[in-house]
Amino acid sequence: MNNFNLSNVEKNLKINFNNKRIIQTAFTHSSYAKQFKESQYNERLEFLGDSVLQLTITEYLFSNYKNKLEGELTRLRSLIVCENSLYNVARKLGISDFIMMSKGEELTGGRDRISIQADAVEAIIAAIYIDKGLEVAKEFILTNFNDIIKKAIDNKIILDFKTKLQEYLQKDGDIDINYELYKHEGPPHRRKFFVNLYVEGKLLGSGEGYSKKEAEQNAAKEALIKLEVVDE
Amino acid sequence: MNNFNLSNVEKNLKINFNNKRIIQTAFTHSSYAKQFKESQYNERLEFLGDSVLQLTITEYLFSNYKNKLEGELTRLRSLIVCENSLYNVARKLGISDFIMMSKGEELTGGRDRISIQADAVEAIIAAIYIDKGLEVAKEFILTNFNDIIKKAIDNKIILDFKTKLQEYLQKDGDIDINYELYKHEGPPHRRKFFVNLYVEGKLLGSGEGYSKKEAEQNAAKEALIKLEVVDE
Repeated sequence: MNNFNLSNVEKNLKINFNNKRIIQTAFTHSSYAKQFKESQYNERLEFLGDSVLQLTITEYLFSNYKNKLEGELTRLRSLIVCENSLYNVARKLGISDFIMMSKGEELTGGRDRISIQADAVEAIIAAIYIDKGLEVAKEFILTNFNDIIKKAIDNKIILDFKTKLQEYLQKDGDIDINYELYKHEGPPHRRKFFVNLYVEGKLLGSGEGYSKKEAEQNAAKEALIKLEVVDE
Repeated sequence: MNNFNLSNVEKNLKINFNNKRIIQTAFTHSSYAKQFKESQYNERLEFLGDSVLQLTITEYLFSNYKNKLEGELTRLRSLIVCENSLYNVARKLGISDFIMMSKGEELTGGRDRISIQADAVEAIIAAIYIDKGLEVAKEFILTNFNDIIKKAIDNKIILDFKTKLQEYLQKDGDIDINYELYKHEGPPHRRKFFVNLYVEGKLLGSGEGYSKKEAEQNAAKEALIKLEVVDE
């Protein structure tokens, strides 16, 4: 279901492109280009978009936190500019359905893959930069990363949900936490894992991912959301 | 000899600054700020300048090498944006004498240190970006990195001079290459090493550095220059 729809994309991004070709390229995954012998796909745009994103976040932190030293600014930036943040932005923008990928990629869960969605966001940033210039790209980034920046500043970005859950549950004593792999599907090189998380024998969360670790992290995250320790 | 001289600096950089304070900060090493209780030094500018440099080189490669894939562009960028390139630019601009540093830093060879000069160049880029905008910063970067970009494209950047020298000398058979540490000076944490390089018993190069490895690399580089295998 490769239904790149320009007007929907422009609506979601709140941007009208002069160069329609470039935004379509931003939504073209390499697998699609290979399958349909297209010459253009989004990897080169991704390379450029990452630099525009880095500069924008760097300048924002530099200008708004004049008392923070370089080391702290670097730490904050690495929390803000990462695959997970880009994936959050992708979900917020609702772009996943519009990414064009090969049938094989689609069938092995490519449309849900964090990296494919994150990369598309970087490519979109580059498309905006090329088509509209730095100021519009900056505005797009700061609007869409606004809550992530706030979270980073407030020290609310959690990198390790399993550790966080364990700390939270065991603060009043030992509690039994158990991750159980109950299913996996797909070929070995694209295997998807499904994990249930039990706390004192009760199901508290489920998660899936392309590694056992990722599935466990997602299960722990779901539990933390249920427990209202983290939001979103 | 902390003689930051604004008009000389502006002449060397070919830029007149509106905000004189910011270019002075770009030339202020943290050791100077600590010794003289100055609040401003160049580390935060360095953080910003690095992003401006990355974007400029990324965009240049993206626009001028449309047939190169992302992986190759990334490889080229890493050759161009690195401490060694920044140090070369620092030497070309002749900025070393104007960097303000503490007496301690000066006495232990800080003025010749690759990292201090490289960091100052990044800070200068940020100062230009803040004072003059992105276009002027880009122009400054592309002018001063021009030969480094060419070298990278032509595959002429050598990362390991020792290996290069060995390959060159031993292409026609085994030749005796010998690095001899003949002196070191300075306190243990800032020790400077001096190395002579002998080929078949004849002195072919000398090098110094803050590690034995760096000194040997510099000796090999000198030999390669003498042999006209590399220029500069």
